[in-house]
Amino acid sequence: MKKNFIALLSLLISAGAASAQEALWLFAPVESPVVNSDSTVTLSIFAPNASKVAAHGFGMNPLELTRSDNGTWSVTTPKMKPDLYTYSFDVDGVRTIDPANAYTARDISMIFSEVIVPGGNADLYAPRDVPHGTVSKVWYPSPSLDATRRMTVYTPAGYEQNPDRRYPVFYLLHGMGGDEEAWNELGRASIILDNLIASGKAEPMIVVMPNGNANLAAAPGNTSAGMYTPKGEHSIAKFGKFENSVKDIIGYVDSNYRTIPDKAHRAIAGLSMGGGHSWRTSMLMPDTFDYVGLFSAAVRWSGNGVETSNEEISEPLQRQFKNAPKLYWIAIGKDDFLYKLNEDYRSLLDSMNIPYEYHESEGGHTWTNWRDYLVMFTPRLFK
Amino acid sequence: MKKNFIALLSLLISAGAASAQEALWLFAPVESPVVNSDSTVTLSIFAPNASKVAAHGFGMNPLELTRSDNGTWSVTTPKMKPDLYTYSFDVDGVRTIDPANAYTARDISMIFSEVIVPGGNADLYAPRDVPHGTVSKVWYPSPSLDATRRMTVYTPAGYEQNPDRRYPVFYLLHGMGGDEEAWNELGRASIILDNLIASGKAEPMIVVMPNGNANLAAAPGNTSAGMYTPKGEHSIAKFGKFENSVKDIIGYVDSNYRTIPDKAHRAIAGLSMGGGHSWRTSMLMPDTFDYVGLFSAAVRWSGNGVETSNEEISEPLQRQFKNAPKLYWIAIGKDDFLYKLNEDYRSLLDSMNIPYEYHESEGGHTWTNWRDYLVMFTPRLFK
Repeated sequence: MKKNFIALLSLLISAGAASAQEALWLFAPVESPVVNSDSTVTLSIFAPNASKVAAHGFGMNPLELTRSDNGTWSVTTPKMKPDLYTYSFDVDGVRTIDPANAYTARDISMIFSEVIVPGGNADLYAPRDVPHGTVSKVWYPSPSLDATRRMTVYTPAGYEQNPDRRYPVFYLLHGMGGDEEAWNELGRASIILDNLIASGKAEPMIVVMPNGNANLAAAPGNTSAGMYTPKGEHSIAKFGKFENSVKDIIGYVDSNYRTIPDKAHRAIAGLSMGGGHSWRTSMLMPDTFDYVGLFSAAVRWSGNGVETSNEEISEPLQRQFKNAPKLYWIAIGKDDFLYKLNEDYRSLLDSMNIPYEYHESEGGHTWTNWRDYLVMFTPRLFK
Repeated sequence: MKKNFIALLSLLISAGAASAQEALWLFAPVESPVVNSDSTVTLSIFAPNASKVAAHGFGMNPLELTRSDNGTWSVTTPKMKPDLYTYSFDVDGVRTIDPANAYTARDISMIFSEVIVPGGNADLYAPRDVPHGTVSKVWYPSPSLDATRRMTVYTPAGYEQNPDRRYPVFYLLHGMGGDEEAWNELGRASIILDNLIASGKAEPMIVVMPNGNANLAAAPGNTSAGMYTPKGEHSIAKFGKFENSVKDIIGYVDSNYRTIPDKAHRAIAGLSMGGGHSWRTSMLMPDTFDYVGLFSAAVRWSGNGVETSNEEISEPLQRQFKNAPKLYWIAIGKDDFLYKLNEDYRSLLDSMNIPYEYHESEGGHTWTNWRDYLVMFTPRLFK
């Protein structure tokens, strides 16, 4: 007698053997999130015994969910701007991801649910039917940190098929508490690059996203340190040592990828701590980067985490701008806690007649802004 | 006045601006999981208002947690065998990951928390201080499926540094509901390969993990289909078409990687549906693979999901074994729902005097077994 595979699977379920591979048949009893056509988002969770449920995230105050008779709680957000949002539920004081949502992102030690409200730049955050680049996790030797370290490398679509073509390189650095996965996951870097390149807005380029924590070789769980709880503090140990290791990264990339290894074809940008890294590295290596992006950047901070004086940095800045980078781009949100720091830094640049471009956005120290800045900065490179 | 960066961050917290980048300072108030020295695992969750909390997973019945005065619930498992375990909490009927555990894995549509109990093979599932291979997400053209599709490719440590060396290739296929991420995440394939190769137990090899769902180009969230809820059913559409596309994958890999492109240097293995794919592909391409691994395999299933008769497969099997693969390895757990199917298949092989090796394990249709099988099978390849 011929058996039917699907029927056999059904038999497995009815036999109660679902624990064998429970995920095949285990689904949340509600659909959540639902992005509505008016750009509101409806969140739902089945929690029949809960007495209070709230949704945290969406860059706003917690939203209270309302219980229906069948035990499902739900809430619809206000109309949201196009963006990728992270959120979590609070069920009677317990924080949880949305059990009906398979899409999550880790931000340091916390797992959040994700949803995209389409439109505007957010359409660049979702994969489209365009040629896709390759995303690799690569280990490279870093003699100056005496370690083998991990980075994320994006090579654009066509890289494998055009073995004689050489490409410019964009070094893209994460913030405190982050790691070599942050820009590609929360930052959607490879998806944004695929979409910008496919539409002709950005040049095909290699994007290198290293780990900017000098005391860590790789993102949590990827080293023999085990499955520890990642914390922002891990960024602070050996503060200021990462910048010295950028030469190791460039050396590896220029040796192992088909790069155009000169200043005109190198960019560096970063957010927050990574903005500080970009600021300091580009200043200390004045012949290396023709494009510098400081996103909500911790500018002016020396290796030991203390602010540098105007006197200390005037001379290296003059050296850097003697043969000025083609683009020195500073961006920050009006509500960013580093706003004043950047304002003072711009005053210094102005007083020195150093040319730069400045973009001031709404909001604060957020991935919403950093993705926006990436979308604005990347099309300016290598043209 | 010089500012201290750390002090400025502290200011940010006290100013209540933590929502700006809340993850930096947002931690669960308990430590969980804790792997104890006696191989028990203590799980904890702060849930002061809950009336019942259970832990699901660990391949056993749910464990009830006990509340302490401060609102923290906890439980310690029995002594566990070394393994990677997935689990979740049930808090008053709401399923949640462990909020204190940053390590999760997606199994089809569900997110689970992960913990490793060390020892035995499980020591191969955790990264060690050994040379690491590169893991890439690669898009390749598949003319026979009229699509560009995504796969995970592992190249061993040293691949970049030895540009004249060529490598054998192991094609490793996932099960129903899975995708090109399953073997590397739940299956820990690249970590296992790093560790086996570093200890000299396995040959350096390329491992190719394609997406075995012929109707899907890539894992959920990586195509223009958006952030839908992945379901096992997605594997069933176009059932039987994937096998025809393996030639596209091999063609791409042989063109873009430094392979040794012959039968003696190709292996194919898979679990469940992917075991069926390996069974059928190796039979239909008799000159292609010298190593075949059938892990809890859906053997004997034809393209349309119906069992094939002895008459239908005798002739192609005879053709395959005329120039027999060096290793034809069948493994299954005693409690697997596909046990009988495999038993019947072995009877057929016996009756035809076809040589194979057989490994029977405890347990059922589980990642515990599939990781074990990978650890047993891989050292046998290319020697």
